[in-house]
Amino acid sequence: MANSFDSFFQKLESTVSNLYQKDFLLTWEKSYGELETILTVAEALKHLRDQNISSRCFDSGLAISQFRDNSTRTRFSFASAANLLGLAVQDLDEGKSQIEHGETVRETSAMISFLSDIIGIRDDMFLGAGNAYMREVGAALDEAYRDGVLPQRPGIINLQCDIDHPTQSMADLLHLKTEFGSLEALKGKKIAMTWAYSPSYGKPLSVPQGIIGLMTRLGVQVDLAYPEGYGLIPEVVELAGQQAKESGGNLRIVNSMEDAFRDADIVYPKSWAPYHVMQRRTELLRANDHDGLKGLEKECLANNARFKDWECTEEKMKLTNGGKALYMHCLPADISGVSCTEGEVAGSVFERYRVPLYIQAGFKPYIIAAMMLTNRFENPADTLRKLVDADVKRVI
Amino acid sequence: MANSFDSFFQKLESTVSNLYQKDFLLTWEKSYGELETILTVAEALKHLRDQNISSRCFDSGLAISQFRDNSTRTRFSFASAANLLGLAVQDLDEGKSQIEHGETVRETSAMISFLSDIIGIRDDMFLGAGNAYMREVGAALDEAYRDGVLPQRPGIINLQCDIDHPTQSMADLLHLKTEFGSLEALKGKKIAMTWAYSPSYGKPLSVPQGIIGLMTRLGVQVDLAYPEGYGLIPEVVELAGQQAKESGGNLRIVNSMEDAFRDADIVYPKSWAPYHVMQRRTELLRANDHDGLKGLEKECLANNARFKDWECTEEKMKLTNGGKALYMHCLPADISGVSCTEGEVAGSVFERYRVPLYIQAGFKPYIIAAMMLTNRFENPADTLRKLVDADVKRVI
Amino acid sequence: MANSFDSFFQKLESTVSNLYQKDFLLTWEKSYGELETILTVAEALKHLRDQNISSRCFDSGLAISQFRDNSTRTRFSFASAANLLGLAVQDLDEGKSQIEHGETVRETSAMISFLSDIIGIRDDMFLGAGNAYMREVGAALDEAYRDGVLPQRPGIINLQCDIDHPTQSMADLLHLKTEFGSLEALKGKKIAMTWAYSPSYGKPLSVPQGIIGLMTRLGVQVDLAYPEGYGLIPEVVELAGQQAKESGGNLRIVNSMEDAFRDADIVYPKSWAPYHVMQRRTELLRANDHDGLKGLEKECLANNARFKDWECTEEKMKLTNGGKALYMHCLPADISGVSCTEGEVAGSVFERYRVPLYIQAGFKPYIIAAMMLTNRFENPADTLRKLVDADVKRVI
Repeated sequence: MANSFDSFFQKLESTVSNLYQKDFLLTWEKSYGELETILTVAEALKHLRDQNISSRCFDSGLAISQFRDNSTRTRFSFASAANLLGLAVQDLDEGKSQIEHGETVRETSAMISFLSDIIGIRDDMFLGAGNAYMREVGAALDEAYRDGVLPQRPGIINLQCDIDHPTQSMADLLHLKTEFGSLEALKGKKIAMTWAYSPSYGKPLSVPQGIIGLMTRLGVQVDLAYPEGYGLIPEVVELAGQQAKESGGNLRIVNSMEDAFRDADIVYPKSWAPYHVMQRRTELLRANDHDGLKGLEKECLANNARFKDWECTEEKMKLTNGGKALYMHCLPADISGVSCTEGEVAGSVFERYRVPLYIQAGFKPYIIAAMMLTNRFENPADTLRKLVDADVKRVI
Repeated sequence: MANSFDSFFQKLESTVSNLYQKDFLLTWEKSYGELETILTVAEALKHLRDQNISSRCFDSGLAISQFRDNSTRTRFSFASAANLLGLAVQDLDEGKSQIEHGETVRETSAMISFLSDIIGIRDDMFLGAGNAYMREVGAALDEAYRDGVLPQRPGIINLQCDIDHPTQSMADLLHLKTEFGSLEALKGKKIAMTWAYSPSYGKPLSVPQGIIGLMTRLGVQVDLAYPEGYGLIPEVVELAGQQAKESGGNLRIVNSMEDAFRDADIVYPKSWAPYHVMQRRTELLRANDHDGLKGLEKECLANNARFKDWECTEEKMKLTNGGKALYMHCLPADISGVSCTEGEVAGSVFERYRVPLYIQAGFKPYIIAAMMLTNRFENPADTLRKLVDADVKRVI
Repeated sequence: MANSFDSFFQKLESTVSNLYQKDFLLTWEKSYGELETILTVAEALKHLRDQNISSRCFDSGLAISQFRDNSTRTRFSFASAANLLGLAVQDLDEGKSQIEHGETVRETSAMISFLSDIIGIRDDMFLGAGNAYMREVGAALDEAYRDGVLPQRPGIINLQCDIDHPTQSMADLLHLKTEFGSLEALKGKKIAMTWAYSPSYGKPLSVPQGIIGLMTRLGVQVDLAYPEGYGLIPEVVELAGQQAKESGGNLRIVNSMEDAFRDADIVYPKSWAPYHVMQRRTELLRANDHDGLKGLEKECLANNARFKDWECTEEKMKLTNGGKALYMHCLPADISGVSCTEGEVAGSVFERYRVPLYIQAGFKPYIIAAMMLTNRFENPADTLRKLVDADVKRVI
């Protein structure tokens, strides 16, 4: 049985990677080899679990979570990942803390970290703020470690910010790797990351940005499609374009869902609020301007309503390569006739892809666990080998 | 010391039981042997704990809890049970999740279950909904497992629904077994499950229904007593009547607390809202009709007040067998002169039975742990034997 | 490596101590040797952690926390301590429980304790109530254990009450021991525990009381300084005075921050609400008198504002011994120009002492873990020796 892990060890040992004690904040800050390492460790951890071998590499230790926005699947994925490695979750609930009491981020960051190994943060409400907050926490931890306040520097994992959603996009990538057989097999394929109509508004930009920021590194054709005026953060789009060139792929921006779907191998239709709306929304949220927010919502919903035909229908699916593109979504989707009257995707399309979609979501706990493990252990192959050799049963 | 476990192993090995990978939703869906198995495993786990032997059969793993209503003792019992077996508790707090966001039960059920072993649910507010919700979750898990979305099918434990409260009634039964020496010793005894006055309203039907649904299987005389109009769900009462016949016992419905108490060996006086009131209340709750709910509460409290003499007094206790019936309650009780002016039980009666009542409550963590263990391990005797043989100390 | 623990073992074995199964509610209820034992165990646990040796002395078990007031660092310290020893934290959230439902403290205490090892309680809002509540819980646990309801008597740790904040003052003391080399080295030193201006009001008295209640036992000169009318609970001050005499030290009350700072080796400037204000506030809180509370707040803030010069400035620091007194605070501090316009301490002073302040805070998890360990294990040296000998790695 131990032999079944050999390919993972070989892959890890032949890949140059420097993830140890580095926060995971944006996929484009990681080398291709590092992303491969995350995928491989995630696969190995899944294989360990499937073989009923314990992957506890911590006898005790804490994984802190801080959710500044609601979450179901990322919350459970984080808890599952922590538990898988032997860490206990402690949630930092700002409402129950003294943080509002004028405490600085620098101070709180040190105070929660004395015996902590990992800190996971979701902060996606304010444009320009979420990723910056994670970096502020990181700088505080660096300083506290350097000053001898902390015996170790806990690693930070971005559980969704205003810019990227790396645990999502990496889980998506592992899904693609599994579906297509390898990362190499994705080369030359076409991915359509397109806006879709939703009856709600204010959805973060992190998923589409995360997808174009990651998929453009694979030598694929990425079509980013949205109605005029629904653009993403310009810097992220520019960076994705550069990455596409470097990887031998391409990034194309179109204003037609049909254009993007045509001959696509993978489609990812998902609503988001336009960049300039998110900017205004951030200002209003900061100003606590409830009337302004209501007005903006009304305006945006009216504008959204002009694009109800941006729905992933059976008809549009027929435009894709062989009519059989892989449909993806980060969930929960706005499903026409199920969770709303008119939404991002037709009920029949969603239902046809429901199983692969759920399988896609199931990679997230392992991706997060891989991010934790590679942050805390310098030589992941070594760590995994110890687990395989110890062969402690997860369930007796 | 290992010998002290032999009787548990023998009992388990001689009892036909098929609890493996079956949800525990209603006691009357389980065979008599299966109920005996739960009791035996609970006793064995308690004995392990008393001997300071660890009963961790999971090296890691998650037990999900979902409380759609407040809870103290069941919440702590669930947490204690999970911890006893080595599982970490992760609470599904719908307020902090995206569930209200139009996500389906089918989807959420899969999303929280990728690395989960057990899901405990309390859902007792809506008549016709709580148990149905658990079955909906169960069907979603079945489907997700069949579809390859989940690597295993987590087990569901009913932590109280609109119909039954099996962790309560089974803890009650273990208390009775301990007090009377054996289940067999209960044969021919008389149990009075009676309504009692409370200054609050809207208490669930699950406890009285759970008690008659379980105790009628023991060959005992069950008297169900309530003021006219305070009936339970008719189907449950009918089923209890059939069970009584099959077990060689009897179920009698009376409208007098005194009649029920007369010669009783066990009394369980406990308030509940009438079935038809719960039906109306459910409609009003669903309609979010606050005024309607207030009106109903007023009406019901006025009606309740007509039956203030339905109190478990010293005088009524004298009617019981030798004046010494065992007084039971699921707690917290409305104690006259302690937690309210006039309530379910006289202060002196409650105080006299306080210690056995608390001991009764103390069986719940072990009952839940037994439900978990028998759901996850096909051969509980084998699992327990491994724990005894390993002899890991819970406290070093 | 095991040798590096010998000094801890020797210290523990040569110190008379009787902490086993005794709640930790007030430092002045513990002997000097017992306080030394707590410090030594805390140091040993920290050393174990630094050596990557697991200090799990529980294979499973629960540590209950009950926070009746907000908390960041004590909450995380408690969670860290529990995890360090192998206990899982279960929070008693009164909002999600049935406690408001008329349940008695006696009952709840038993109900949450069937499989619990430790209960940590923060209750600092009501003068005369917090410590009393802990004792009420303790009496309920004693009774439940005596009655056979509980298989063991969980230990209670005071996580801050109206009288004392022992996990804080003991962490402070471990900081002083570390800074000055030994407890003996503190003899003859001068500590200034002084009131300081804050733009908020209603801060508990537990920290200044905890500090004078502990530091007067070390043979030091304690200056307690506050503006007229800002006195502490008289009984605590009186007791501190007696202790000072017995230890060969002194307690002096002055109404000048400068007087207290003069030649001080340690300064602890920290705001609090006057005793008589806390008495009125407690009455108003109990009466749910929102207008009265607002009026009191206004009155107190106005009164506070008369003493804005009670700030720990660079100038005042120059009055201390060599201008180099150790500045201490329980955090978070009201820092002038950082977290408020005018506060307890000048920005430059705070910043200069920020690192030692954070180090001070970092002792709390170990102090709490030491309180847990000494409560549950009769012979702490023996327990620690087992951990050292087992040499299980915390991180593989």
